[in-house]
Amino acid sequence: MKLCQFGDPGREKPGLVDEEGRLRDLSGLRGAFTPEDLSPDGLSRLSAVDPRELPLVDGSPRLGVPYHGVSKIVCIGLNYSDHAAETGLPIPTEPIVFLKATSALCGPDDDTIQPPRSTKLDWEVELGVVIGRTARHVSEAEALGHVAGYCVVNDVSERAFQMQSSQWDKGKGCDSFAPVGPWLVTADEVPDPQALDMWLDVNGRRMQTGSTRTMIFGVAALLSYCSAYMTLFPGDIIATGTPPGVGMGRKPEPVWLKAGDVVTLGIQGLGRQRQTIVPWRE
Amino acid sequence: MKLCQFGDPGREKPGLVDEEGRLRDLSGLRGAFTPEDLSPDGLSRLSAVDPRELPLVDGSPRLGVPYHGVSKIVCIGLNYSDHAAETGLPIPTEPIVFLKATSALCGPDDDTIQPPRSTKLDWEVELGVVIGRTARHVSEAEALGHVAGYCVVNDVSERAFQMQSSQWDKGKGCDSFAPVGPWLVTADEVPDPQALDMWLDVNGRRMQTGSTRTMIFGVAALLSYCSAYMTLFPGDIIATGTPPGVGMGRKPEPVWLKAGDVVTLGIQGLGRQRQTIVPWRE
Repeated sequence: MKLCQFGDPGREKPGLVDEEGRLRDLSGLRGAFTPEDLSPDGLSRLSAVDPRELPLVDGSPRLGVPYHGVSKIVCIGLNYSDHAAETGLPIPTEPIVFLKATSALCGPDDDTIQPPRSTKLDWEVELGVVIGRTARHVSEAEALGHVAGYCVVNDVSERAFQMQSSQWDKGKGCDSFAPVGPWLVTADEVPDPQALDMWLDVNGRRMQTGSTRTMIFGVAALLSYCSAYMTLFPGDIIATGTPPGVGMGRKPEPVWLKAGDVVTLGIQGLGRQRQTIVPWRE
Repeated sequence: MKLCQFGDPGREKPGLVDEEGRLRDLSGLRGAFTPEDLSPDGLSRLSAVDPRELPLVDGSPRLGVPYHGVSKIVCIGLNYSDHAAETGLPIPTEPIVFLKATSALCGPDDDTIQPPRSTKLDWEVELGVVIGRTARHVSEAEALGHVAGYCVVNDVSERAFQMQSSQWDKGKGCDSFAPVGPWLVTADEVPDPQALDMWLDVNGRRMQTGSTRTMIFGVAALLSYCSAYMTLFPGDIIATGTPPGVGMGRKPEPVWLKAGDVVTLGIQGLGRQRQTIVPWRE
């Protein structure tokens, strides 16, 4: 299944994407998707719905985060061997874990707001892993049983803010820095999360090309690892790191996003996002 | 006012502490406290209640986090000049911002769960600032108008986890590492948040003694600063850093918490907490 939510911010309705890729309106049957819907039972109930029997949604409404109730976004730094090489930093021997503020969440095509004093705005296409069952000290073998599905995340980053102190969260957590979606694609439709191509363009120019194959720590290892430090609840997202090609790593000079730039990105089978950079306004 | 919640985890009832320090049961009038209650209007409505007309609560029930709906815990590192000196690190010229996972939240007297493989469990008494009005790019002069009140926070830290990579969040976010309470003390009862004595004992031995006077960045400066990077919502907490005396800084050797240890801590006017260290169990 491909779950999504559409409509104005804070008033999103639930939808399903049918086999032809058309958006179907589920709001006649139920309200917004919640973390409870992401459990095996919840997904099983949803899978009983035949999208063809739902009304088609007219036009191209705004999409929101595909479900409500993300309590935590756990991010992994430098998790692609080719990206680690690009930064010149050593390949991590353990996952580097940090958090992204949930106030940064937004829809996949919402504008990216460039904060005041931002000079080094950057992009990071990432595979998002959505938790479906509470995960606490789970083994790597059990880990994928706790995954509801996958989604595209742009781990938008302001490098000047990120690097101003030793701690990255400040430059990762600004409002609109966590576009999620367009869909939550349930795990049954992603037979191998370690074989997904991913890409990101700025103004139509290809900047990132990668594959989840080059992750240093794979999805199962990351979920198990993170669950040993903090309980992962249904709806929580692990953003699993980015492949090469971020603006910070461009040669001969870094490339930073500016107002008016358009970022498009996607992951094989998980859909695509499109953000326009806009300056912050009161 | 002193707001609190009492009862079993997940089923807490709202309470008020009366002028004699006795816990009164508000559950006959309403459900759990929510972020909406922390707005100026919400607090004004609550202040119309006369605690003396509420039933006394029998015995000493467990206390929870004083309200529901914390979406974010923003922490400030090395924010006391005397603590910065103790760590041997330079005094920060800007606040060091990181995040504590909300899954770490627990009541003020709940056990602290020592995670598997933890070897360097430590304590940090901190002044928690609770947001009452949404704060986004607010000036220092406006900042205190966005504060609902104050509370005690123990920023429990596992130093081996914290220092294993460059990013601290992993060692700050384990389950039970964010005891909050006993109360939310509304701002009108805290005339000067920069003049509060604070202390922490381990097994009855004084370890931390400090005052919010020695903060490098005060409450208003921190709230303004953080709001420039991420929107602060009602119920969000800023944990403003710790004074000297953490286990990591003890001489001649660091002191780490172990199962059976009892940590007590408090801040002038904001009440006290008491945690027993217990090993993690399946």
